[in-house]
Amino acid sequence: MSDPSTPVSIPTAADVDAAASRLAGVAVRTPLISSPVLDEATGGHVFLKAEILQRTGSFKFRGAYNKISSIPVDARAGGVVAYSSGNHAQGVAAAATLLGLRSVIVMPSDAPRLKRERTKAFGGEVVLYDRETEDREAIGRAIAQERKAVLVPPYDDPYVIAGQGTAGREIVEDLSALGLLPDIVLVNASGGGLTAGVALAVKERAPKAEIYTAEPAGFDDHVRSFASGRRESNPAMTGSICDALMATSPGQITFEITKRLVGHGVACTDEEVARAVAFAFRELKLVVEPGGACGLAALLERKVDVRGRVAVAVLSGGNVDPELFARLVG
Amino acid sequence: MSDPSTPVSIPTAADVDAAASRLAGVAVRTPLISSPVLDEATGGHVFLKAEILQRTGSFKFRGAYNKISSIPVDARAGGVVAYSSGNHAQGVAAAATLLGLRSVIVMPSDAPRLKRERTKAFGGEVVLYDRETEDREAIGRAIAQERKAVLVPPYDDPYVIAGQGTAGREIVEDLSALGLLPDIVLVNASGGGLTAGVALAVKERAPKAEIYTAEPAGFDDHVRSFASGRRESNPAMTGSICDALMATSPGQITFEITKRLVGHGVACTDEEVARAVAFAFRELKLVVEPGGACGLAALLERKVDVRGRVAVAVLSGGNVDPELFARLVG
Repeated sequence: MSDPSTPVSIPTAADVDAAASRLAGVAVRTPLISSPVLDEATGGHVFLKAEILQRTGSFKFRGAYNKISSIPVDARAGGVVAYSSGNHAQGVAAAATLLGLRSVIVMPSDAPRLKRERTKAFGGEVVLYDRETEDREAIGRAIAQERKAVLVPPYDDPYVIAGQGTAGREIVEDLSALGLLPDIVLVNASGGGLTAGVALAVKERAPKAEIYTAEPAGFDDHVRSFASGRRESNPAMTGSICDALMATSPGQITFEITKRLVGHGVACTDEEVARAVAFAFRELKLVVEPGGACGLAALLERKVDVRGRVAVAVLSGGNVDPELFARLVG
Repeated sequence: MSDPSTPVSIPTAADVDAAASRLAGVAVRTPLISSPVLDEATGGHVFLKAEILQRTGSFKFRGAYNKISSIPVDARAGGVVAYSSGNHAQGVAAAATLLGLRSVIVMPSDAPRLKRERTKAFGGEVVLYDRETEDREAIGRAIAQERKAVLVPPYDDPYVIAGQGTAGREIVEDLSALGLLPDIVLVNASGGGLTAGVALAVKERAPKAEIYTAEPAGFDDHVRSFASGRRESNPAMTGSICDALMATSPGQITFEITKRLVGHGVACTDEEVARAVAFAFRELKLVVEPGGACGLAALLERKVDVRGRVAVAVLSGGNVDPELFARLVG
């Protein structure tokens, strides 16, 4: 991402509020879903922030729209460029199309078919790269330079983080309407943009809430970074069913926020995530992709004790290939 | 059902209000889900009443709980009995268990595996019968007599109808909170209990709303009954993927209500329903069973013109076997 010596702008809860104004009437205000079955399974008072119901099927539309709508009108002619394993891709393509900008999306060649197809359907031009041997950021930067396109980073950007944070703002607002405050919030983490944004918004309104990252086992860079106090990297770049949670390490900006406001994390194996996807299908009637079900898995496996507490897990995405879904729920 | 010469008690909107009080804090107040994709696909302002998120995965819990909670305490010792293809089965089993009553459920031997398993999981004792050769009502009555159990009819009962109507009450309340009223409401119809209850609640608050039944092609007994003015029967008893919508004809009580307040209906083929199930998976991230997707299919196929209008389709159930679901969405 950026050179670590460059001073970076760290977004605040006020930036999330500004993002909420920009997104009003454009992003879906997704429901906070509760279920007696889930409460029985966990012993807590559990709510699911259903970002699977967001435009494009994941929270990513929020950050993308907030970022792209902040591009000055005279800098929009070259469109935007983004690199993404699939959910950010769709969010950027859809937001750009809504705002009348062209978009080029650099996607790994092993990204799920559904995500590639939907990115095109939302109006994005897709360029594929090899996740193991090519550098997506370099490809993205080259396209940005050549076309004078504005790069929309997947997570390490103040506007993107603030946009994702609007999901956290809605969580607290909707719980407040029920006379509740969150005790625990679990957020699926890749680069940490959603976690950072949600933490900003939630801690502003519910300072005692504990925020947890939820990551795939073996890709728990946040857990290890919280322990060491610096941004740790994952050894592998492929090998989890959670294709949406494969960033190499926490972002520079996101970690500035999450090391201060989060500091806890859990990791779930592929088997645990698969059980959560099947539970969501069978008991909740929701389609959740593996990377969107990590926090739910942590709850169902009781990795975080929520007994007697108000807990929220963000279902961050639902873009799963039908073949994989059939295997996970069958 | 009952002898046509017996005077029947026709429920009213006030009975739906009473049911809403009984169900408060017990049934899930299911969200009204909207989606830009759905609005684009139909040209309307479309909302989905997500009864897939109800306890047991369908609206049936509402009527079952309202009926069973109205049984006098001194008549509860023998428990309850019900006959059902699967969703009413689960609703009755779950409601009886919550209220501390035993339940016996008479289910067709070709009912989906998931529905049979879940009925047992909710505490019901399952008795199977052959849909083509045996009479489920006779079996249910025999068990009721033998065990002194109270029969919980699937639709033709004032308490059951009033309970289902609470879904309609919530539709109008939630739309009102957005400053809207429904122009069109599509309800998947089998015996017509949900349609009748929803019609009572909606027409009380939004008299100009048009209610439509949505049925499987070949099982459109409501459409034909509305046309002839009397309760018509379906020629076949099996042969649709909508296993939840296979009642032979409209109920006596339900038709008294629906012929007055509904009077319109549409029918969808298996292929159209399958496309709607796949659309809900891919675009909405919702698990809808075929019988729960008939109204959605009618919208997507533009069988009802909702352009520029506020339309609601009830997603009445989500209990679908994983094997069938995989085939429909693959």
